[in-house]
Amino acid sequence: MTELEKMGAAAKAAERELACASGIIKDRALSAISSALIENSGVIIDANRLDFENAAAQGYTAALLDRLRLDEGRIKGMADSITEIIAANDPVGRVISGSVRPNGLKIEKVTVPLGVIAVIFEARPNVTADAASLCLKAGNAVILRGGKEAINSNRAITEIMRNAIKNEGLPADCIQLVGNTSRESANELMKLNEYVDVLIPRGGAGLIRAAVENSTVPVIKPGTGNCHVYVDRSADIDMAAKIVFNAKTSRPSVCNACESLLLHRDIAEMALIAIKARLDEKNVEIRGDEIACTLVEDCVPACEEDWGREYLDYTISIKVVNNINEAVEHIAKYGSGHSECIVTSDYQAAQLFMQSVDAAAVYVNASTRFTDGGEFGYGAEIGISTQKLHARGPLGLESLTSEKYLVFGSGQIR
Amino acid sequence: MTELEKMGAAAKAAERELACASGIIKDRALSAISSALIENSGVIIDANRLDFENAAAQGYTAALLDRLRLDEGRIKGMADSITEIIAANDPVGRVISGSVRPNGLKIEKVTVPLGVIAVIFEARPNVTADAASLCLKAGNAVILRGGKEAINSNRAITEIMRNAIKNEGLPADCIQLVGNTSRESANELMKLNEYVDVLIPRGGAGLIRAAVENSTVPVIKPGTGNCHVYVDRSADIDMAAKIVFNAKTSRPSVCNACESLLLHRDIAEMALIAIKARLDEKNVEIRGDEIACTLVEDCVPACEEDWGREYLDYTISIKVVNNINEAVEHIAKYGSGHSECIVTSDYQAAQLFMQSVDAAAVYVNASTRFTDGGEFGYGAEIGISTQKLHARGPLGLESLTSEKYLVFGSGQIR
Repeated sequence: MTELEKMGAAAKAAERELACASGIIKDRALSAISSALIENSGVIIDANRLDFENAAAQGYTAALLDRLRLDEGRIKGMADSITEIIAANDPVGRVISGSVRPNGLKIEKVTVPLGVIAVIFEARPNVTADAASLCLKAGNAVILRGGKEAINSNRAITEIMRNAIKNEGLPADCIQLVGNTSRESANELMKLNEYVDVLIPRGGAGLIRAAVENSTVPVIKPGTGNCHVYVDRSADIDMAAKIVFNAKTSRPSVCNACESLLLHRDIAEMALIAIKARLDEKNVEIRGDEIACTLVEDCVPACEEDWGREYLDYTISIKVVNNINEAVEHIAKYGSGHSECIVTSDYQAAQLFMQSVDAAAVYVNASTRFTDGGEFGYGAEIGISTQKLHARGPLGLESLTSEKYLVFGSGQIR
Repeated sequence: MTELEKMGAAAKAAERELACASGIIKDRALSAISSALIENSGVIIDANRLDFENAAAQGYTAALLDRLRLDEGRIKGMADSITEIIAANDPVGRVISGSVRPNGLKIEKVTVPLGVIAVIFEARPNVTADAASLCLKAGNAVILRGGKEAINSNRAITEIMRNAIKNEGLPADCIQLVGNTSRESANELMKLNEYVDVLIPRGGAGLIRAAVENSTVPVIKPGTGNCHVYVDRSADIDMAAKIVFNAKTSRPSVCNACESLLLHRDIAEMALIAIKARLDEKNVEIRGDEIACTLVEDCVPACEEDWGREYLDYTISIKVVNNINEAVEHIAKYGSGHSECIVTSDYQAAQLFMQSVDAAAVYVNASTRFTDGGEFGYGAEIGISTQKLHARGPLGLESLTSEKYLVFGSGQIR
């Protein structure tokens, strides 16, 4: 048995015990983790300093160093997130549906844990506590495989969590960390079908692509977002400007930020005056099609590539369309299926857009920035899925469960 | 563009039209397919004769020849299955959940089609009409890739279906058949992520394994069944004998048939007398552990391999256990997560078994043979899933849908 196979077998054994643990026991274990992280923040910070110094010595960028760094405040943040997870309802054991069949069989479909979840992530060490806590709440054992930059921090956090849950009577192996941070360990994890039920890659596009291409274990993947706002002929222009400004600039680096603006030609000129005025507040660069460039000063002509790009920055592409169908077609061609918005006052246009646009979330008259577990009322999230299988949209605790049929009989045969 | 990429692009385009089609239009198209199959049964039978003669000339087994053969009766069966699909509720557009958020955003989660589904199947040509109709009802375009043995039959059926739906105003490319039946075409389909949303392998263990190992497209896979019946100390012995007999012998070749019997030691001797009497009616071969072999005449000693086998035949393995926990452990080790049954009169034993056994369906006092779309009240099914992602248990029409969030705002920003 390889090291990872041993971890897989240990996770499976732990998971069977965890799957039968009551909500009270799981919440007590989470509470113990939360407290232990605060109590041992000195140990975590010492380990994190090692990671930080190694990374700094290797000339990592300021942005990456910032993501790597842990201090009292960030550890408090990790502990607080766990408190929120404790407050959430137990996602396990919920009766999804049920019926009594004509032969008297009583059939119930209930939620159960997925089993063993492998989470592959990159530099941010707070994912360690976050992912482990979400998995634990849903009754799953987790095998964590973080990035090499954060290995000392991840080790310290994992040890603290394992001790905490062991003290509460749960198997320590509900939470395990892969010590080997080579690409090989990630690849082996992606093929560990005998022990791992689901793989979640949490990181950049490269990691997610590698998981899709190589994993024989079923994958739940967070998606990228090339989100559009389409301003219809009938739109309230002030509302449109407010929504575009918010969707583009409130946090440009996230996947639910707007990357592209589509304007109905009849209102394009008027709308652009209002929208440009707001975007200028944040010096947003505009890349427009031919018509947009005649209407906007300082407009950079957009090339084909611009329509498909996720800028994640203060840049937006703008295209003028002849009608709503052209907008829908454009989104079908270039969108990533994340979040799409129409600003309109027209009932038929709203209905058509909602029906025709294929995305995890379709908005009428609201910012795309709302696609988020917290905003949707689900609490903590693992990411936002753009895949169509299993879970689409914000991945809450429910997405970490599977289902099982319970059939209550009295001797029925077929 | 390769041939398959062209088919993928055509399917995507067709699917966007189909996704917006009303239930009435889809049901009319299905009805047209059903009628056309009957009207053109001569054409289908002629094409099938070619396949049959080719296969016979190549020395295929009688079993395979039988699966390949179509006659008036079987074509009528195909048409009747479609009538059942028409009778089912439209799985698309169902509101799964909804809420109004504190900021006034109204959020609805609704079912939508998966998109483009590729179905890879083997010798049985009736799967062509069956899979296409299920996909169509759920608003999905389908790319069918059948086995080479049935290519002429599949071509004839597909052409009839395409014409039928075109006459009803739906794009013919909602249903396409891959003409190339080489292994390469299957492999290419498994990697056609740009156009194919979901892959369903319908066939033997080899095909399913190949799909899991090679597919970068997300897979919904029917599973194999190594189903157990555990007869608890408190069991009603007559009921146990009736259930074991039904689960083992009513149709041994299917995945929900019982393959292994576990007996509590306190009732093993008595139970075996009753059970053996029933199994003898069908000359079921018994492979037992040491104790079972002392209790049963003509018992073949079971080897380690027997515990994990799906016999799909009149053979059963029998093991005597010391208590319910040993039964649960045995099932966790050897079961395939399909259907597991306890026969008991003890409340705590029933609860423990249901909670601890991890399978798609867990039964108390009823035959495992009930794990079936029809028996569960779902109508037609694509198979029975033992995977934990997306859908587990009988795969009804609902499992051919994804979901989407509709967000109704009035200018909300974040």
